[in-house]
Amino acid sequence: MKTEVDFAKAGGLVPAIAQDFQSGQVLMLAWMNEEAFQETLRTRRAVYFSRSRNKLWRKGEESGNVQQVRDILIDCDADTILLKVEQIGGAACHEGYASCFFRQLNHDGHVHATLGERLFDPKQVYHK
Amino acid sequence: MKTEVDFAKAGGLVPAIAQDFQSGQVLMLAWMNEEAFQETLRTRRAVYFSRSRNKLWRKGEESGNVQQVRDILIDCDADTILLKVEQIGGAACHEGYASCFFRQLNHDGHVHATLGERLFDPKQVYHK
Repeated sequence: MKTEVDFAKAGGLVPAIAQDFQSGQVLMLAWMNEEAFQETLRTRRAVYFSRSRNKLWRKGEESGNVQQVRDILIDCDADTILLKVEQIGGAACHEGYASCFFRQLNHDGHVHATLGERLFDPKQVYHK
Repeated sequence: MKTEVDFAKAGGLVPAIAQDFQSGQVLMLAWMNEEAFQETLRTRRAVYFSRSRNKLWRKGEESGNVQQVRDILIDCDADTILLKVEQIGGAACHEGYASCFFRQLNHDGHVHATLGERLFDPKQVYHK
């Protein structure tokens, strides 16, 4: 099934931003290939493509913190996806924070603050 | 000047999300190389790297719609940047919309709605 997203232009992978559908907080950025996008459309749960593991990444399959997709938008170039999601468990980040963007940079480009609090302990969730 | 962002891992370019610092609306996604990021830090205006033109893209240099950077965050992997910006002129998108993400997809992955209104006519701004 052909969709509107231009996977060819970007070499098969496009960035996908997940944003909390209620608060507007940007939760994370990951990547999708066409298969991940199709499964996301079909299941209404966010499925990404893991570049490090080189396979589909069904977000939350390990932690239980799935993302229920409320809305899907694409940008003017059709090569970036924006998902409005309900983040089950409240934390999108594998570090336990609501958002992966929990580190604020100072004017020199170094971390000077951590925003938000850990909602879970990664060691407890991932059994590493 | 070395910063916290891991440009090496991603082949020199990392995605940068621009989000309205007040409303939380996601405005666009573009790319930064280290030079673009350094200039963004220094000038507090968003500077991207245009993959199509293969050079720095000082956002707004043509349209006047610069992005004043209020806050800079990085994600847990240090390979994605989130800019909280004040979008001068109100429209981030070259199509005249506040956000580049003005197209909403239906369950089949096709556009079924346009969100928001054109704030400017691209033909008037870019003299194409």
